[in-house]
Amino acid sequence: MSWIEISRRKQEALRNSIPPEWRLPASRIADAATCLDVSGLVSAELSYNERLITQSDVADILTSIATGEMTSFEVMSAHCHRAAVAHQLVNCLSETNFVSACEHARNLDAYWRLNGCVMGPLHGLPISVMDRYDIGGLESACGFVSWLGSFKKVEDEGTVVQKLRHLGAVVFCKTNVPMSMMLGETTNNIVGSTVNPYNSNFSAGGACGGEGALIALRGSPLGLATDMAGSTRIPAAFCGLYGMKLSEGRLPSDGIESVLPGLPVGSGSIGLISRDPQSIQHVIKLLLDSAPWSSNCDVLEMPWRQEKLDAVHQRATPMSGRLVFAMMKDDGHLIPDLPTKQALTTTEQALKLCGHEIVEWKPPSHKIATEILFQLFGSTSAKCIRDAIDASGEPPVDQLKEWYHQTDSGSLPTEDFWKLCEELQGYKRSYMKYWLAMGAKTASGRAVDGVIMPVSPHATTQEGTDRYFGYTAVANALDHTSCTFPVTDHSQGLPVGLQVMCGRLQEEKVLALVQAIKQSLVQAYNHRGD
Amino acid sequence: MSWIEISRRKQEALRNSIPPEWRLPASRIADAATCLDVSGLVSAELSYNERLITQSDVADILTSIATGEMTSFEVMSAHCHRAAVAHQLVNCLSETNFVSACEHARNLDAYWRLNGCVMGPLHGLPISVMDRYDIGGLESACGFVSWLGSFKKVEDEGTVVQKLRHLGAVVFCKTNVPMSMMLGETTNNIVGSTVNPYNSNFSAGGACGGEGALIALRGSPLGLATDMAGSTRIPAAFCGLYGMKLSEGRLPSDGIESVLPGLPVGSGSIGLISRDPQSIQHVIKLLLDSAPWSSNCDVLEMPWRQEKLDAVHQRATPMSGRLVFAMMKDDGHLIPDLPTKQALTTTEQALKLCGHEIVEWKPPSHKIATEILFQLFGSTSAKCIRDAIDASGEPPVDQLKEWYHQTDSGSLPTEDFWKLCEELQGYKRSYMKYWLAMGAKTASGRAVDGVIMPVSPHATTQEGTDRYFGYTAVANALDHTSCTFPVTDHSQGLPVGLQVMCGRLQEEKVLALVQAIKQSLVQAYNHRGD
Repeated sequence: MSWIEISRRKQEALRNSIPPEWRLPASRIADAATCLDVSGLVSAELSYNERLITQSDVADILTSIATGEMTSFEVMSAHCHRAAVAHQLVNCLSETNFVSACEHARNLDAYWRLNGCVMGPLHGLPISVMDRYDIGGLESACGFVSWLGSFKKVEDEGTVVQKLRHLGAVVFCKTNVPMSMMLGETTNNIVGSTVNPYNSNFSAGGACGGEGALIALRGSPLGLATDMAGSTRIPAAFCGLYGMKLSEGRLPSDGIESVLPGLPVGSGSIGLISRDPQSIQHVIKLLLDSAPWSSNCDVLEMPWRQEKLDAVHQRATPMSGRLVFAMMKDDGHLIPDLPTKQALTTTEQALKLCGHEIVEWKPPSHKIATEILFQLFGSTSAKCIRDAIDASGEPPVDQLKEWYHQTDSGSLPTEDFWKLCEELQGYKRSYMKYWLAMGAKTASGRAVDGVIMPVSPHATTQEGTDRYFGYTAVANALDHTSCTFPVTDHSQGLPVGLQVMCGRLQEEKVLALVQAIKQSLVQAYNHRGD
Repeated sequence: MSWIEISRRKQEALRNSIPPEWRLPASRIADAATCLDVSGLVSAELSYNERLITQSDVADILTSIATGEMTSFEVMSAHCHRAAVAHQLVNCLSETNFVSACEHARNLDAYWRLNGCVMGPLHGLPISVMDRYDIGGLESACGFVSWLGSFKKVEDEGTVVQKLRHLGAVVFCKTNVPMSMMLGETTNNIVGSTVNPYNSNFSAGGACGGEGALIALRGSPLGLATDMAGSTRIPAAFCGLYGMKLSEGRLPSDGIESVLPGLPVGSGSIGLISRDPQSIQHVIKLLLDSAPWSSNCDVLEMPWRQEKLDAVHQRATPMSGRLVFAMMKDDGHLIPDLPTKQALTTTEQALKLCGHEIVEWKPPSHKIATEILFQLFGSTSAKCIRDAIDASGEPPVDQLKEWYHQTDSGSLPTEDFWKLCEELQGYKRSYMKYWLAMGAKTASGRAVDGVIMPVSPHATTQEGTDRYFGYTAVANALDHTSCTFPVTDHSQGLPVGLQVMCGRLQEEKVLALVQAIKQSLVQAYNHRGD
């Protein structure tokens, strides 16, 4: 079968997996295509109850189910419906699991009725996952036609998915990724491109653009992603969401398809995306409480450290805040655009208004870190990607064409790979030295708590635009933690996000900082209104 | 200058660094050479006070200094003297730091007199380090003539050394390692071979044979080592000591010379050697209490977890013990010799006598793990080692000759290196699966706490004997923690040691288990006497 036929059949199967009553008439889709901002169109397709449910955050959903206010089935069905509508407008899904998810939800409801209590702390929570997470019964195409047709078994599911299931959550769909997953936007020859829900001329970002668009349209309360150079944070920022990159080894990364199999550095960062940081925190905490290290050898035995979160919250009390933020307004290489600059100024003013300290950040070159990281990724000439494209005969997507048509330069000698590893190590050490040195220069004498910086030089990009990863990949090179936060909208109705970065394995701290920033932005906004 | 001349001058410098009054007459050294067991000869060279001091463990030394019972200078001088004598008998040092260490000790004494308290919790503790640790003012030859002549600066010292200094400890000598450090015995063209203090026909083991021999002769209370395939544990077992291999990232590994620079897996395990587990525990705990992660990006933020230690101690109460040990009597490939078998039986009986449970251990092949690990190490064809040998024109030591005279096969392609990394990952996962599965098969229903196994198929080896790393390298492949313990002596007066291995980053647990084993062995021994 030709790749075109395989792809056509997959598109059809995906379309058919949406129940007929949820399918939008062609005319509605055509209308939507003329309307750049589709974010307002979804609600109209839903019932009042469905709208209510899909506007809830993770904690609300769990409470409503636990107290019997809503059934798991109602919650699941509402999200499936909303995800189906969202997909028809922005092309955000790669797989659906609607039937089995709804059946699972009914079973959870039966359990609840029988026992009068929930099965686990995430009882009934719908969760979406990036297409590289293996899910029993579904494919993990990762944007390659040749990877279709391989249906994963339940035994293929990784520890995170297993733990989430055990806690009561239900994976109900998989979201679109770009061919190879190594792009900052989301396009492939199967599902096509995922567009930004706020302006369909723009990209939803990538590689988790499917998650970004779906969650922005409230089709899912929380998504599982990964972040090797910004894949969680770029779409989160482009879609006005919170996207958190964890350090490697904090959560398990097994059961995830890879195009760089065996890469021993920089490949294990899990990401989570949601509309609010509390939802991300809630799920990470529960995953850590489930002691994933006891069954997975890649995870560090590092339980949730509430004291780290509390310590930041204590210092972030309104008007008595004393957190120290470094602010990197540009990386000295590619200057951010005006909307991003404005977002930085807005954030700086809000934090200052709340009494937080801001210092300037001129660290060891982020561009160099990015170059080392990309050389590490490229040291086998991405043979696996080339093979995956060639296996079906499909053409590479535009963004991969130049690379694909270059002569395959083969693998670096291992000696050179080790040299790159050593360079990366040197970079990490110099960055830590800088961070420590900056602690001596703050007005408060405190160490810098987190670094606020752009996620991209562009608030949002149009598909095919040159992509620059210097602002995100540095956290991957350093194995640091980082979380995006939305600041404001720019003139074309598109959201503008920034990120705050902390040291390695400082997940609790990043979450606390992002909440303090959110609080400051709200407070500054209200203050302005006075 | 020829390599012979460089080496000769270094030998002379090392000899001259020993104060004339501590030098043994040539006749005494000749006499000692005829006497296989030199362990009894050292004391005769020392004063009563020096003997007393050098018989103390870490806690005793620290208490004596803190309470003013002994001065730091007395402690330091006694250890320098004993180390000097030991070196003349077994060739265990590569560098001495006696003058500056004694001066430093005098300064500590002055501080104590002035302030009436110690400068830090390790005030005045003499510490020896394996030759690959950089120490200001000294060389780090690592067994290569060509690496002589490069005197390290204080800024070159790694975080562990810095922290130890800050805690009050004083590095007073560096210990011998084999050329390249990649051998299980200790020989090079500079210092020569370090022999076993209990029988000079046998090896002290390696790569940290210098530490093993020195500490066995009570020339140092504690030594810093590393362990890439058994370098800490082999000499510890051969010399009747406790040698602990930590997991990578638990303690910092910067400031350490490497022959595999940039190797991204399996290179960062720190080791500690002492005559008792409490001394090792004391120093690890203090190092972790000093929060090395706050200034070193390689270290995990994982504080000392006393609760892990306490949990084991509680279950190890004499005659009510309920620990579960797995016992691997052989790896199915090379069957241990009789003394080792006897040590296994002795340990098993002692543990059973104390009520602990013993299960058999037939894990995924250790030999395969070792092969993968050594292929990873060899994937640049050890270019750095070849270059280091060639740079001076010295010949490779016998143990490296075969490898050296093979055609240099160059570096593997990075693709193959990644494949090996993937294989290693697969092995780790299968081992964890086995460990979990065994938990269901114990009589108590508890998980296996630790695995007891040989350190080597031979209780001790003669230099040049074929070496097999299958019993030690598995812990490196898995990044597990492991600690050796002495069990008994065999007929030639040589000690016989075993090891107990726990999971990744379970340093506290390993230390607790080794103490429980020690306790059981003592108890069984006393019981036998009843």
